[in-house]
Amino acid sequence: MAVAPLPLRLVTFWDSQPMGEFELLAKLRERLPEPGSRVRLGSGDDAAVSVPGGATATSVDALVEGVHFRRQTASLRQIGRKAISTALSDLAAMAAEPGEAYVVLGAPEEIGEEELLELGEGLVEVAQATGTTLAGGDLTRAPALTVTVTVVGHAARPEDLVTRAGARAGDALVVTGELGGAAAGLLLLEDAGLVATASEEGAEALDAAAADALRARQLDPTPRLDAGRSLAAAGATAMIDVSDGLAGDAGHLATASGARLAIDAEALPIAAGVAAVAAAVGRDPLELTVSGGEDYELLAALPPAAVAAAREALARTGLALTVIGKVEATDGPGPRAEIRRRGGEALPSRGFDQLRSRRHR
Amino acid sequence: MAVAPLPLRLVTFWDSQPMGEFELLAKLRERLPEPGSRVRLGSGDDAAVSVPGGATATSVDALVEGVHFRRQTASLRQIGRKAISTALSDLAAMAAEPGEAYVVLGAPEEIGEEELLELGEGLVEVAQATGTTLAGGDLTRAPALTVTVTVVGHAARPEDLVTRAGARAGDALVVTGELGGAAAGLLLLEDAGLVATASEEGAEALDAAAADALRARQLDPTPRLDAGRSLAAAGATAMIDVSDGLAGDAGHLATASGARLAIDAEALPIAAGVAAVAAAVGRDPLELTVSGGEDYELLAALPPAAVAAAREALARTGLALTVIGKVEATDGPGPRAEIRRRGGEALPSRGFDQLRSRRHR
Repeated sequence: MAVAPLPLRLVTFWDSQPMGEFELLAKLRERLPEPGSRVRLGSGDDAAVSVPGGATATSVDALVEGVHFRRQTASLRQIGRKAISTALSDLAAMAAEPGEAYVVLGAPEEIGEEELLELGEGLVEVAQATGTTLAGGDLTRAPALTVTVTVVGHAARPEDLVTRAGARAGDALVVTGELGGAAAGLLLLEDAGLVATASEEGAEALDAAAADALRARQLDPTPRLDAGRSLAAAGATAMIDVSDGLAGDAGHLATASGARLAIDAEALPIAAGVAAVAAAVGRDPLELTVSGGEDYELLAALPPAAVAAAREALARTGLALTVIGKVEATDGPGPRAEIRRRGGEALPSRGFDQLRSRRHR
Repeated sequence: MAVAPLPLRLVTFWDSQPMGEFELLAKLRERLPEPGSRVRLGSGDDAAVSVPGGATATSVDALVEGVHFRRQTASLRQIGRKAISTALSDLAAMAAEPGEAYVVLGAPEEIGEEELLELGEGLVEVAQATGTTLAGGDLTRAPALTVTVTVVGHAARPEDLVTRAGARAGDALVVTGELGGAAAGLLLLEDAGLVATASEEGAEALDAAAADALRARQLDPTPRLDAGRSLAAAGATAMIDVSDGLAGDAGHLATASGARLAIDAEALPIAAGVAAVAAAVGRDPLELTVSGGEDYELLAALPPAAVAAAREALARTGLALTVIGKVEATDGPGPRAEIRRRGGEALPSRGFDQLRSRRHR
């Protein structure tokens, strides 16, 4: 057992801790902004009450200390922001309107009231910025800090939501923003000396601002909620967020759609500084980019005629849209998603697997 | 930090474990029954898609190894059953129709595929028995086994859901089933020698069947979903499930309703065997009953004229309904909920607090 058994304390007792569950929940509730119009009853009863749209999209995500983050490199506020942002990223990939979030906080005893409130503020910041209501939650002891977020998004009709399953042969494959930054940022966070090494490497120097931007990509991703809805409006046939790595996520979309994805490795929009970081650790920047994950950009299939309008809509919010390949018919076994260099060599086709990998990310 | 930092493994790799996240999720999905009619898209995409009723009730609950259960005394199947049952208990307390459940499983490395599938079967059993669709989930490494369940219930209108806040002076206070069993069951689970001791104690003997029933109350609670809707139909003005202990939960209901609850300690329906177990550990059975928690019965306020009809409705499902006190007006400070012996002495007024107590339960 990973955790020492805790002493049995059946009798309710009040120990020397400065604050209990109910007081802390009350303090967290004080910090919540006004609930959205769909929420009829927020945190504090047995359940929250909402008046949903015609369809809901619901997703859950968990961040676990030592698995998804370390407290040495991420502030409590950043942990709170990332926990809700990564959950909302799934709603972005469905083109859902963000609605409510429900948070379960598992807190070790050594984390105090102020720290939990700081984590709560991170949650509130992203909720406010995205129009999400923090409608409920639970607080418990846990051996490692754990933040589990359930998000509910809304749409007028189920068919307004974009799944992974509709890509058709002939569609263009597009990706928002830039890739590889979160993986490079993780390497920089885990090895503070890496910036100096990377800066000395030949072709591309890594200045302090670029290094900061890469770390921010890892610590504080942005859910592409507006972009997801713009891509849906432009006619996206299938969509997924890039959380496990482009290689893995492209595979999920291909399998769900029963299609083959042909991706041009040289077309990938790689974030500034990734090449320098990859060189500093002796890694291939393309391989780092497609296997690293956590960029939380959107990968979508789109009829080629719709690409220009989608690109224009995203440009209005300052986000690039890049065509990285195309959807092809498949009639048998073999890789569903292939990322190929122009020389012809295919990159590894698998992404990140939570149970197989033990990386901290 | 409670957890040793895990090695950084940025590169996707495939170690010697027999099964990864995606394969295990696929195996768990194979075991899922047909989704309910509200679910348009179940587990396997970025989010699940549902067509909700006019109002939803949403609640989250987490069970953490070493905090809420020990694997020495609970089977993986029981842990799965309890995790979803306790979440559904919150829907029962709202009188909601159970709809969808979303499960996040945090698994330590030493728990194998077969054990996780056994836990999954426990989840499926309760989902099937209650008409709940397991519509999505997530799987991650964690230092201790953690099961977080989000449940969504439905109602035609928000006003059909019963909150904690509507109790009125003059209402009768009723409780379903029996109390104290879960607390006594925990004592029996934690000390195998206690059965013998309890059996020797004077007034009430504890036979093996009664001891088994008490352990089952702790390990495998039943969410009172039908009873909750029957109480709502009978006119319940406020309702809460007894999870933290009657003392604490009565306090929550009183505070939310702005009323005072006067509870007659001698009227409480105490489960068979609780007195013997309490005597064996030198505890007062009433105090054990009101502070122990985890019975997952329902406490409701009901106009006195509605009690007979409510009792009859519950009797049809074999569940008792007991009047344990009444709702009174309050016009100032002082305890909101008082549990008083007929001699006049008040029992402790506080229930279980997750952050203050470190008991395993």
